[in-house]
Order: sequence, then C-alpha cells, then structure tokens
Amino acid sequence: MSERAPRQPLRTIDWVDDHIRLIDQTLLPDELTHLDIVTVEQLVDSISRLAVRGAPALGVAGGFGVALALSTIGPENLGPAINSIRHARPTAVNLARGVDRVSALVPDGFDAVLAEAVRLRDQEIAASISMGELGANLVEELVGSRAIRAMTICNTGGLATVERGTALAVIRTLHERSRLSEALPIETRPLLQGARLTTWELQRMGAPFRLLVDSAGPSVLARGLADVVLIGADRIAANGDTANKIGSYSLALGAARAGVPFVVVAPETTVDEATATGADIEIEDRGPAEVREIHGCRITPAGVDALNPAFDVTPVDLITAIVTDRRVVRFDQRTVTDEKPDGDMVGVHPFDEEP
Amino acid sequence: MSERAPRQPLRTIDWVDDHIRLIDQTLLPDELTHLDIVTVEQLVDSISRLAVRGAPALGVAGGFGVALALSTIGPENLGPAINSIRHARPTAVNLARGVDRVSALVPDGFDAVLAEAVRLRDQEIAASISMGELGANLVEELVGSRAIRAMTICNTGGLATVERGTALAVIRTLHERSRLSEALPIETRPLLQGARLTTWELQRMGAPFRLLVDSAGPSVLARGLADVVLIGADRIAANGDTANKIGSYSLALGAARAGVPFVVVAPETTVDEATATGADIEIEDRGPAEVREIHGCRITPAGVDALNPAFDVTPVDLITAIVTDRRVVRFDQRTVTDEKPDGDMVGVHPFDEEP
Repeated sequence: MSERAPRQPLRTIDWVDDHIRLIDQTLLPDELTHLDIVTVEQLVDSISRLAVRGAPALGVAGGFGVALALSTIGPENLGPAINSIRHARPTAVNLARGVDRVSALVPDGFDAVLAEAVRLRDQEIAASISMGELGANLVEELVGSRAIRAMTICNTGGLATVERGTALAVIRTLHERSRLSEALPIETRPLLQGARLTTWELQRMGAPFRLLVDSAGPSVLARGLADVVLIGADRIAANGDTANKIGSYSLALGAARAGVPFVVVAPETTVDEATATGADIEIEDRGPAEVREIHGCRITPAGVDALNPAFDVTPVDLITAIVTDRRVVRFDQRTVTDEKPDGDMVGVHPFDEEP
Repeated sequence: MSERAPRQPLRTIDWVDDHIRLIDQTLLPDELTHLDIVTVEQLVDSISRLAVRGAPALGVAGGFGVALALSTIGPENLGPAINSIRHARPTAVNLARGVDRVSALVPDGFDAVLAEAVRLRDQEIAASISMGELGANLVEELVGSRAIRAMTICNTGGLATVERGTALAVIRTLHERSRLSEALPIETRPLLQGARLTTWELQRMGAPFRLLVDSAGPSVLARGLADVVLIGADRIAANGDTANKIGSYSLALGAARAGVPFVVVAPETTVDEATATGADIEIEDRGPAEVREIHGCRITPAGVDALNPAFDVTPVDLITAIVTDRRVVRFDQRTVTDEKPDGDMVGVHPFDEEP
C-alpha cells in the first residue's frame, strides 16, 4: 500500500518488484488504495469483483498475470492457472488477448514473459498519449480558438487503461494545453462511473468540471453549453457504428441536433472488422438489480422489474469522427484521412483495411 | 392514519370531517401513510417538505387550506395564515391560484369556502378522467390494434393530482381498456420520482412495467421496444414548446428519430399564453446537492460541483400532439382540432385562443 510520488502519473496497474500492484477501484472515490497482488487467486478475485476494470487495463492485467503465474506456480499447474486468469471475466476480449499474447512467450522463460507484459503496458501508455494528442488536435480544429467545454460519459480515463485513458485522455491533453474551459461528465447510471471515477480523475488533474445527471446532457447541448462530446467505445463496427456505455446514443442525438461535434476515442484494437454494422451487435441486459439499487440502497418498491441494457449503439451518421491511437477517421464530410502523429496524411477507406 | 377501502381510488389529498388528509409522499414507496392535517402550520410544513407535490395537487391543497384556516384561525390572523399557505412553495403557481380562487369566498362564510374547495378538487378529478380518455383514444388511433408499450418520465399519476393523473392517467386508462402491453417508466434522476412513485402507482394498478435508467430511453426507442412516449408538462408556451422534467427532451429526440409518437398530457391551465416560445422560459438550476447525493448517500468525491437544471424545453417540432382535459392539439401534420369528450370537433389555432 504505497502512494507514488505526486509528480508521477498515477498508474492503474503495474509490475512492482516481483508482483502486480493495482488501484482498488471499488473503494474510489472515497479511498485511494493500491493492492499488492502476489498470487493468481488474488488477481482473479480483483478482476472478477471489478477492482480493476476497463478493456486496456484488463489486457495489461492479463499480461502481468501470466508473469505472476510463471513465477509462483509449478509447471504442472501453470496451464490451469493461466486459464483461470483468462476467464476471470468471460466477455472481456482484451483480457484474453493480453493473456494469449504474453503466454506465447512462456517457453522462453520468465524474463521473456515479463518483458512482453511490460511491452504491452508501454504500448497501452503510448496509445493513450497518441489518442490524447490526435484527439486534442482534432477538437482544437473543430472548435476553433475559444476555450473548450467538453461533455463525456462513463469513465474513460487512466483508471480504464494504464495512464491517461481514451476520451478522457483528450480532455486531459486539452487541459495540459490550457485549452479546457470545463469538462461536463455525466454521472452514468446505473453504476455511476462518471460520478465516482471520472470526477475523481478530473479533480486529481486539477481540471474544472461540473457533473450532470445523464438525462441533462442533450438539453445542456441544446442550450449551447458544450462545444464537443467525447466518448470511448466498447466495440466499433466495420462501418463506424459504435457500441458504448448506455447513454452514449442519447448524447449523440443531442449533439447532432445542436450541431456539436461528437467524437469517439478508442484504441485501434476496438475496431471489429468481423462486425459489419451496429445491427449485428447484441445488446447485453445486466438484469434489474443495478437499476433497483444505488450503492446497496433500494430506491424502488420491492420486486420491481427493470430493463437494463449495458450499452447502446450510435449509428455512424451521428458521429463526427473516430480517433484511434493511429488515425483520425472523419465521417462528417465522408472524407477519410489517416493522420499519423508524425504528420503523414494517407487517404484510407474507413476500417476496410489495417491502417 | 387510515387506509381507504381497497376498491376506492386512492386520493392524494382530500377533506375528511373537519380537516385535510393527504398521503405523505416522502415515505413512498416504502410506506403508505396518510397525514391528518389539522392546523395551517402542519399544512405549510407538508407542502414545503414535499409531503404533497404536483401542480394540480398543490392547487387543491391551497383550496382546502383556506377552509382549514377559516375554521381554525380567528379573523384578525386569517390574512397572514392564508398568505403563509400561498407562499409555502413560492414558484408553484397552482398553489397560489387555488388559494386565491377559494379565499375569494371567505366573505360568504365557511360553507361557501369549503364548497368551492370541493368543487376545485372535483374539477381536478374530472380533468384527470378527461385527459386519460382523450389521451387513450389518441394513442389507440396512433398505434393501431397492437398492444401498447408506453414510455414515460417522472411521476404524473394520482400522486401529482388528486386521482389518476395526467400522462400516467392515459397509461391507466389504456390498462383499464386492456390495451397496455407494458409501461416503461424512466427513473428520473436526480429525485427519482419515476423509480419511487410511478413504479408504486403502476404496481397498485396492477399494470405490467419495467423500469429504465434515464439514459436508456432513447436507445430502447431506437430498438423498437416502445410504441409511444407520454409526458406531463410544467409549462406549455403559446406555440406548443413544452417545459417539463429534465430528460423529456432526450426522450423527444429519441422518439423523433425512431418515428414513435411523442405526446404531452397536461391540464389546459398549463398552457401559458404569456410565453410565446420555449426560448422565453428560464431554466431553474437546483444546485449540486441533489446530483452529489442519492437518498442522502454521497456518490461523488467531496466538493464536486454540478449543473442541475430542473427541467428542459422540448421544441414543438418534436411533439406529435398535446392532450389537455379539453382538447387534442396535433402538431405532426399541423392540423389542429378540438376534440371535446362529447365528440364535437372544432378547428382552432394552437393556443391562440381559449378553447
């Protein structure tokens, strides 16, 4: 349980000495506690109870998990141990990908495994920096010279990655460039990641912000109180339709009506070529308990049923641009450019080929 | 503290023997408790702490309050007592209207005063019945022969009036006609009137329903899971722009995109001829506390600021029709008809003249 020096960026998950250290997000925003994870069982528990969450962070957890397994488990039990990490959250594709990528190095020994896991961590950090830069450049271009008021949903910050984040990395970069007037996070019922986690990150970075209830987003856009909407993504279909936290579609409708740019920020790995359009994405329902209760406190009469879709699909015609760590794909004028961080611009078809 | 016989409709507020009886809505949905209000002080307290709420219910509370004042307060203190009721909630225009209408009868004595207050109560009940009938007729016509799935926001039921309600009276009437497949109330943050009160009323009427978080509304509409959206109104401008609970505009955007009818249901008294358009309506901000806390439990880091608009304005181009107790005004084809309950149809201009 140690805090980093204040100037260091906060790392959601890392390898320290001979074990994994991660922030216990279930205790936020009330308490910043780092967990020292020294066994595979502790890691599986941390993943399954959401002490660590967010697709990129889970990928890194999977990678470091393989290193932890190799250093603590005998060869005869190694396969099952790695498998238990891989399935700690069955639907998290990044977790399985991180495990698979790093466990391919097991025959080369612990040093090779740890090096690959560290490489994965560093690639995630670099991707967040790149998304922040590309996204901030785009927002500055779209909004012009005035100070920027940026609405966002859920938590897409360092807590969902390793450092900085996706959509919230753009807001952080704008703040570092002294271009941010205020962030407008929405609380993000049912699990309140906006109210609990995004506000906590914004406070830590010293960015000005005001929290909104979810349903106020479209009206605040209509009143001209925001210049851009920035969201993350769970999955991006080949045509650009974007699945993300429930409520994203509502903000997209509000932004389109108000003429405000609506920008998706997500790593290139979020693009799923196997999914042609949003119509092919199944909407998971998470059951009524999360709607009936807030922080363990029941807010409805007993026995109330609920419809609780975990995410929604924003059709590409409502999306101004998608920013990944490697390119900016614009949909507003249907002109597609590949803006590399070094300034190269290459025309590409949206998601028809690898960038 | 007595329950009515089960077959009787539940009255939110009434005159019983020599005093006022009202449901303490602060204890719902956990407990149905009637308060016997025998002094003006108790009434003012009940109004100010929202034990009774909803514009039509507050009007009746004001009317009965004058009768209570006249029967319990000497002539020298009567004026200040009536005034204290009138100002128990400064922005509630119906409360002041109810007080003014009934106190005009004070010179004629207690019997005349009570008779006028009872007339006001009975007119509110009749208005709710009429809105339910006119609205259900319209919804049946718009949706056709299939079973109806109706989305709604906030609490617009008997708890906001005397019996039955406004938008929720339409849902109740459809249910009584065996035409309701399910109601889809949204929880209505920050104060959760949908999750706490509308669910309670739907349970009592035996109507099938599923609760949604607010931000799921537009996506559920896009997925074809609702046939109509029914909302109440705080104020309707002369051109039809409608101010209502925050989140109404978001549902209107979702309904327009999905091609689902969006219907406003409110008493004729809600139409404000002095307000030309929604642009003239000032949006009240209720401060950050309601956003930071749910049921007294803090959900954000300490010191978080919030933007907390109490309502939003839905432009008339997103509204299919407005149903009052006296007419149905249609905006979808810009044909305006006055459909009286007796079947008379008279062409009128929208809200340019008294119906």
